[in-house]
Amino acid sequence: MTTLTRRYRFSASHRLDAPLLSPEENQRLFGKCNNPFGHGHDYVLEVTVAGEPDAVSGLVLPISHLDELVDGKILRLFRNRYINVDVGQFARLVPTTENVTQVVANLLGQNWREYMGDSTARLERVRIEETGRNSCEICLN
Amino acid sequence: MTTLTRRYRFSASHRLDAPLLSPEENQRLFGKCNNPFGHGHDYVLEVTVAGEPDAVSGLVLPISHLDELVDGKILRLFRNRYINVDVGQFARLVPTTENVTQVVANLLGQNWREYMGDSTARLERVRIEETGRNSCEICLN
Amino acid sequence: MTTLTRRYRFSASHRLDAPLLSPEENQRLFGKCNNPFGHGHDYVLEVTVAGEPDAVSGLVLPISHLDELVDGKILRLFRNRYINVDVGQFARLVPTTENVTQVVANLLGQNWREYMGDSTARLERVRIEETGRNSCEICLN
Amino acid sequence: MTTLTRRYRFSASHRLDAPLLSPEENQRLFGKCNNPFGHGHDYVLEVTVAGEPDAVSGLVLPISHLDELVDGKILRLFRNRYINVDVGQFARLVPTTENVTQVVANLLGQNWREYMGDSTARLERVRIEETGRNSCEICLN
Amino acid sequence: MTTLTRRYRFSASHRLDAPLLSPEENQRLFGKCNNPFGHGHDYVLEVTVAGEPDAVSGLVLPISHLDELVDGKILRLFRNRYINVDVGQFARLVPTTENVTQVVANLLGQNWREYMGDSTARLERVRIEETGRNSCEICLN
Amino acid sequence: MTTLTRRYRFSASHRLDAPLLSPEENQRLFGKCNNPFGHGHDYVLEVTVAGEPDAVSGLVLPISHLDELVDGKILRLFRNRYINVDVGQFARLVPTTENVTQVVANLLGQNWREYMGDSTARLERVRIEETGRNSCEICLN
Repeated sequence: MTTLTRRYRFSASHRLDAPLLSPEENQRLFGKCNNPFGHGHDYVLEVTVAGEPDAVSGLVLPISHLDELVDGKILRLFRNRYINVDVGQFARLVPTTENVTQVVANLLGQNWREYMGDSTARLERVRIEETGRNSCEICLN
Repeated sequence: MTTLTRRYRFSASHRLDAPLLSPEENQRLFGKCNNPFGHGHDYVLEVTVAGEPDAVSGLVLPISHLDELVDGKILRLFRNRYINVDVGQFARLVPTTENVTQVVANLLGQNWREYMGDSTARLERVRIEETGRNSCEICLN
Repeated sequence: MTTLTRRYRFSASHRLDAPLLSPEENQRLFGKCNNPFGHGHDYVLEVTVAGEPDAVSGLVLPISHLDELVDGKILRLFRNRYINVDVGQFARLVPTTENVTQVVANLLGQNWREYMGDSTARLERVRIEETGRNSCEICLN
Repeated sequence: MTTLTRRYRFSASHRLDAPLLSPEENQRLFGKCNNPFGHGHDYVLEVTVAGEPDAVSGLVLPISHLDELVDGKILRLFRNRYINVDVGQFARLVPTTENVTQVVANLLGQNWREYMGDSTARLERVRIEETGRNSCEICLN
Repeated sequence: MTTLTRRYRFSASHRLDAPLLSPEENQRLFGKCNNPFGHGHDYVLEVTVAGEPDAVSGLVLPISHLDELVDGKILRLFRNRYINVDVGQFARLVPTTENVTQVVANLLGQNWREYMGDSTARLERVRIEETGRNSCEICLN
Repeated sequence: MTTLTRRYRFSASHRLDAPLLSPEENQRLFGKCNNPFGHGHDYVLEVTVAGEPDAVSGLVLPISHLDELVDGKILRLFRNRYINVDVGQFARLVPTTENVTQVVANLLGQNWREYMGDSTARLERVRIEETGRNSCEICLN
């Protein structure tokens, strides 16, 4: 199997605070990440696509298809935003790396066919690095 | 001249919005960095110290002195904070990389002697990387 | 499947010398890594955990559980140590990247339940980078 | 399963131009990568090997076996070369990351046994990073 | 003094061959970098600007001024090009890191005032990393 | 002024222990770096050379001159060594980053003319990164 991975970057901010937990529980669970006015990161997003390279072009997919999808549905939504307030999907969802990765994977999956044209490449994996110390990965196959 | 540089990291968020400019001017000048609810970065802070290595210890300064100063006066203030709201120095100051670097340099300078004991090492340079693309440096000598 | 990976760092030293091989064989197999007084590295340790994000907290596991396990059972043992002499598990075991990774994976596995509380997250993968050129990975499932 | 990954680097240049497509199609598909005189990259090559660490040496394989294979069959072919003209395999093949990775994987596979001596380690994965934004990976098992 | 550094990237290819030297001298001096069809790199360009942060905006200069200058006069010229053939300044000049840095510094200096508007920021330093092993820096003050 | 910087890497180990200090003082000053059997790092060495690019070759100096000097006088001495025991200069000198940088700078300076041939390039700066957090730099002009 051949996979192609493309890396994108966006800066955003978030606050970790679970609405169903008490302030003390949130503080214990999230520590400084629970600070009331939020903080931010330079997120790295990696999207991995699987498929066979096209015999003519040598490409698993035209990269511009993927760039347009990620730009239109992900970067436009998250870049330079306060995730808790600016991104509707997080109205009740805590913006942990896990949940951000899941929302990104869902958005890519829902819009995949519209952007991929006649390419048969599949969305294989979404990975988000929150900092150099933390990352989350969701495999879709 | 011998200099020693130590690197620290902290995550924080900010919004670039100059109170003396109109919304249109702020938008034109800062673009997405002017988004109303802020966004964030994984800041890298480098502190450079100049001096002669001590003949007995081989050190320009005991690293713990510098770590305690940076931890007590900088990281405690900025780490996991929304700079515009949480850090008093930015009540009227736009938290650009330039101004964040200046505030950090001032704080290190003002507290230098208290933390350095009998070391003769001098604060030489403060550098802050906001992202992999932007950094600011202030030389103090 | 959702996995979360957390990265730790420690500096240590080692010497590659297999007790069952002759000096000539050791020299041929390990080259400069067989030098008699050892040498060292800034090791990177990545621990990958698999599970479902908790519906309330959005976390695969409370990160502090993992940090306490890694700090208590791994970093305390290896950090700033000469692995051949300071770490009992290597009394007869050559501290290659492969064996260091295996020992770390064993220690994490043996102590997993004690530190994880009621979390159902599983230890999925342990990866150690010895230098920017060499790394070893053990998948546990 | 234990895998060992080793990283190599080489600089090379290439031009993306599919002989079966028209100039307009090539331009649309490859953009600036279709510029007539080519451009280049600092490629990163990662080779991953799977196996059991040897009980005596603690090694999945003697690293020198792998280094000699990669040096003799890959780096000698690609390093400081214009792939389209200097590397015979690309006489009719577009040197996309996908195709370069495939050619490298084939060369490693074809010469594996000759260089591995009595080691039972298997070639598991070949990964090439073209730039910090693009990489391709082929799993062989 | 406050300086701001901004980092850009471009991929290009080149061949090191001095027209006044014999083939043997070129081979001895440049080794594989003299290979006849060229090779390439992912260049990193850092531009450092010096000045006082503006009291209202907190900026040493509007970043968009610098981005437009670098995009219009440097990246457009070098990105995805074979420097020896595509960039007129190198018709007789060997595209070593030193000469590429000098040409970039000259182009930035010649066009500085046109792009900087009423900003008083000065061009302070140009640095080019050819690979992770080689870089060249020119200080302009 | 044009400067060229070249980066080298070597792995080594050391123990921080000042012979003129008591065990308690050493422990307080160096912490875990005072552990009795040493520990190690993957050192990065950057050598910066200043001069005018040659009009014919476009080079500040032939890189092979510098590589041969660094290889013959520095890397051969430090690579895969326990600095305290294997490197004679540290018989009584504590191998802090400061002292390692000073010894390297001295060795480069003492052997400069022998290796530089008729090049007029000057040794400008020596910088050693001990880890991603600590570095030392000595400017020689």
